[in-house]
Amino acid sequence: MALFNRKHILSTKDLQKEEIDQILETALSFKEVMRREIKKVPTLRGKTVINLFLEDSTRTRTSFEVAGKMLSADVINLSKSGSSLAKGETFLDMAKTLEAMKPNVLVVRAKQSGLPKRLSEHLNCPVINAGDGLHEHPTQALLDLFTLQERWGDVKGKKITIVGDIAHSRVARSNIYLLKNRGAEVTLVGPGSFMPLGVEEYKVKITYDLMEGIREADAVMVLRIQKERIGLPFFPSVREYARFFGMDRSKLAECKKEVLILHPGPVNRGIELSPEVADGSHSVILDQVANGVAVRMALLYLLVK
Amino acid sequence: MALFNRKHILSTKDLQKEEIDQILETALSFKEVMRREIKKVPTLRGKTVINLFLEDSTRTRTSFEVAGKMLSADVINLSKSGSSLAKGETFLDMAKTLEAMKPNVLVVRAKQSGLPKRLSEHLNCPVINAGDGLHEHPTQALLDLFTLQERWGDVKGKKITIVGDIAHSRVARSNIYLLKNRGAEVTLVGPGSFMPLGVEEYKVKITYDLMEGIREADAVMVLRIQKERIGLPFFPSVREYARFFGMDRSKLAECKKEVLILHPGPVNRGIELSPEVADGSHSVILDQVANGVAVRMALLYLLVK
Amino acid sequence: MALFNRKHILSTKDLQKEEIDQILETALSFKEVMRREIKKVPTLRGKTVINLFLEDSTRTRTSFEVAGKMLSADVINLSKSGSSLAKGETFLDMAKTLEAMKPNVLVVRAKQSGLPKRLSEHLNCPVINAGDGLHEHPTQALLDLFTLQERWGDVKGKKITIVGDIAHSRVARSNIYLLKNRGAEVTLVGPGSFMPLGVEEYKVKITYDLMEGIREADAVMVLRIQKERIGLPFFPSVREYARFFGMDRSKLAECKKEVLILHPGPVNRGIELSPEVADGSHSVILDQVANGVAVRMALLYLLVK
Repeated sequence: MALFNRKHILSTKDLQKEEIDQILETALSFKEVMRREIKKVPTLRGKTVINLFLEDSTRTRTSFEVAGKMLSADVINLSKSGSSLAKGETFLDMAKTLEAMKPNVLVVRAKQSGLPKRLSEHLNCPVINAGDGLHEHPTQALLDLFTLQERWGDVKGKKITIVGDIAHSRVARSNIYLLKNRGAEVTLVGPGSFMPLGVEEYKVKITYDLMEGIREADAVMVLRIQKERIGLPFFPSVREYARFFGMDRSKLAECKKEVLILHPGPVNRGIELSPEVADGSHSVILDQVANGVAVRMALLYLLVK
Repeated sequence: MALFNRKHILSTKDLQKEEIDQILETALSFKEVMRREIKKVPTLRGKTVINLFLEDSTRTRTSFEVAGKMLSADVINLSKSGSSLAKGETFLDMAKTLEAMKPNVLVVRAKQSGLPKRLSEHLNCPVINAGDGLHEHPTQALLDLFTLQERWGDVKGKKITIVGDIAHSRVARSNIYLLKNRGAEVTLVGPGSFMPLGVEEYKVKITYDLMEGIREADAVMVLRIQKERIGLPFFPSVREYARFFGMDRSKLAECKKEVLILHPGPVNRGIELSPEVADGSHSVILDQVANGVAVRMALLYLLVK
Repeated sequence: MALFNRKHILSTKDLQKEEIDQILETALSFKEVMRREIKKVPTLRGKTVINLFLEDSTRTRTSFEVAGKMLSADVINLSKSGSSLAKGETFLDMAKTLEAMKPNVLVVRAKQSGLPKRLSEHLNCPVINAGDGLHEHPTQALLDLFTLQERWGDVKGKKITIVGDIAHSRVARSNIYLLKNRGAEVTLVGPGSFMPLGVEEYKVKITYDLMEGIREADAVMVLRIQKERIGLPFFPSVREYARFFGMDRSKLAECKKEVLILHPGPVNRGIELSPEVADGSHSVILDQVANGVAVRMALLYLLVK
């Protein structure tokens, strides 16, 4: 296999087509490993993955931990509580301290946009951005793309609509960059107050009418409503949001027959997705989770190997 | 060895005699592994155990983790803090998400009675109940039985008395089912307000007088007093409880010479057990802990293999 | 290699010269392992290390975890939150419970001075003190000594100055014992209120003037200011402390040209160390971290093997 030249995974913005291909092909071969009786390969034996999760997370942290262990790496978990950040240490000092222990890769989730990038500029070991504030969540976008390609072969020319609070979604941002890179037609849907300033720079379609955005879509990526934002000025009420932008059976009935429904999880049932849609035949939400492990195995492998 | 046909371990109520025998015999062989210099067998290499502990626990979580690692499994720990349950995700969504990562068994501890059972009905992977609310704690009862059989060979016809807050004890419930299944004579002792409604359905002896309950007992299982319940109506004062139902040297002196004292831990010293009894020659409390690892190794092995 | 006869590592006070040599030589060989592509040796396969961290810590807990895993041990982490100590269990009961699960070594960090020692008196398995209250932090002192010897070969006759809140520093205490044992000339510097009662018993030089203490020093060990103590009576203001006792470029300029700057971390930048000094060419802070892993590998190996 060709050499993978990238040192860090911080964003989907600057990923090259060949790099994306290589990540997804590698993930495909690891997905095969996940189907085996013995779900373990010795590829990263004697290598150490540090999972530095400074923000709560179940699925992403667990996904990286499972991925690392399936590759036989040693995985060290660190969360904010129980860490010396509580003692006022700077992030950079903490990261340099961890690096001095010779990990082979540092996976970072943080509330601060840009923190993984800043760390990568000061550390010698590879850094993977596992979600940073309102900025990016590149591994989520890669697993979303993997999930779509698994169904379609290629996303080129496919209509993919992202619904929700685009302005505050790192998942949306990473997906917009990646899907456009692959030649998909991206549409953004949400209330006006959910569109980021300068949204026109993404050069994608924008609409404030859900049905207009999803009627012709091949896939709908539904974003999570962050309940902690509800009640802020310009934030619609939950009931209003669910009514106008939540996906339910009746809205789904007006979509394409083969439309796929994605969601990064955790789902607010009854708000952005009705239970019938979340659990229905169009939903690929659990595929996304399984593919997340395969994609993260690929990234760990390509950066560490 | 005969096939083990049960998929989940949720309760001791419906365990068949043959299944119990098989679990305890398997545990016996793993106890031998625990005595070796290299306490590790490759049995579950490449298998993943998820420890989902939604309620605080040291001994049970650690016991499962040690058990899994001795079998060479990868063990992933998840606690409530740091999980996305804090974001309002349902238990079922969380469990389905974890299952999508292809664990081979899910160990669940929860405040909600019946949660492990409900999860087992919706998941494909085996589920082990590591204690659910006021309902059951089957692995505790199995390790208690293992500990008694280790001393006696068989519990049939033995007099076993359970002392304490029977109504609110999952340990008591699981033990009552299991011990009766094995032909032991079970007696329950506690203040009237500690007896569950419908206690007569257990078809065991009930008494409100400690000495009457323990004088002829071959083993006394002392339950933990949950301090958070003290001060509620009908709850006796600690002093009163210790005086009438706490095991101390003078009460022990009136018991059978060979009586065994069990406790699931953690012990409230000076309340349900005096220090001399907890640390004395009749106590098998630390045996219970060691046997817990062996029994959990057996369960992981039988469900995953 | 000669047998290592010590069972526990609780203090540096009573370590014999030969034991220290053996620890540091073993650490040297493990440091070589850390430089390999595959940073893993099978030495402690099938052995279990329990990391019982009852006080927040990133670096020490992670350091022991990395060390254990590089030796192929199974490492079990336990923190205060999520433990049954919250249920009122005594430390000793908790430790005995853990011991019943057959770990090969117990690493303990605690707020209570003397807790590791007390546990060691009641347990059969080896105990390593990973920092106990105001008492000692022997593994820190050993890694500090390793770091100095790595630069100098030998510390005998070298002038080493410890700066800061000596009275409340377990790091200082462990270093004083160990450095004196090796024949270094130790000087303590700090405000009068930071000197412990009976400091003269250490038989080291004491001064309240920073420049007098560091001008001729071969190494300066700068202690962390514990911010939680600021504002207490006799505690100087941060600004005052930084001015009189903080190491900055101008003070460093008056030191020996080859002086080494050590700090146990995490650093309060701008208080006890200016950023230029913390990151400058005299600083060996990140060496200390890396050496910490090697020294802890050595201790785990020597106590468990």
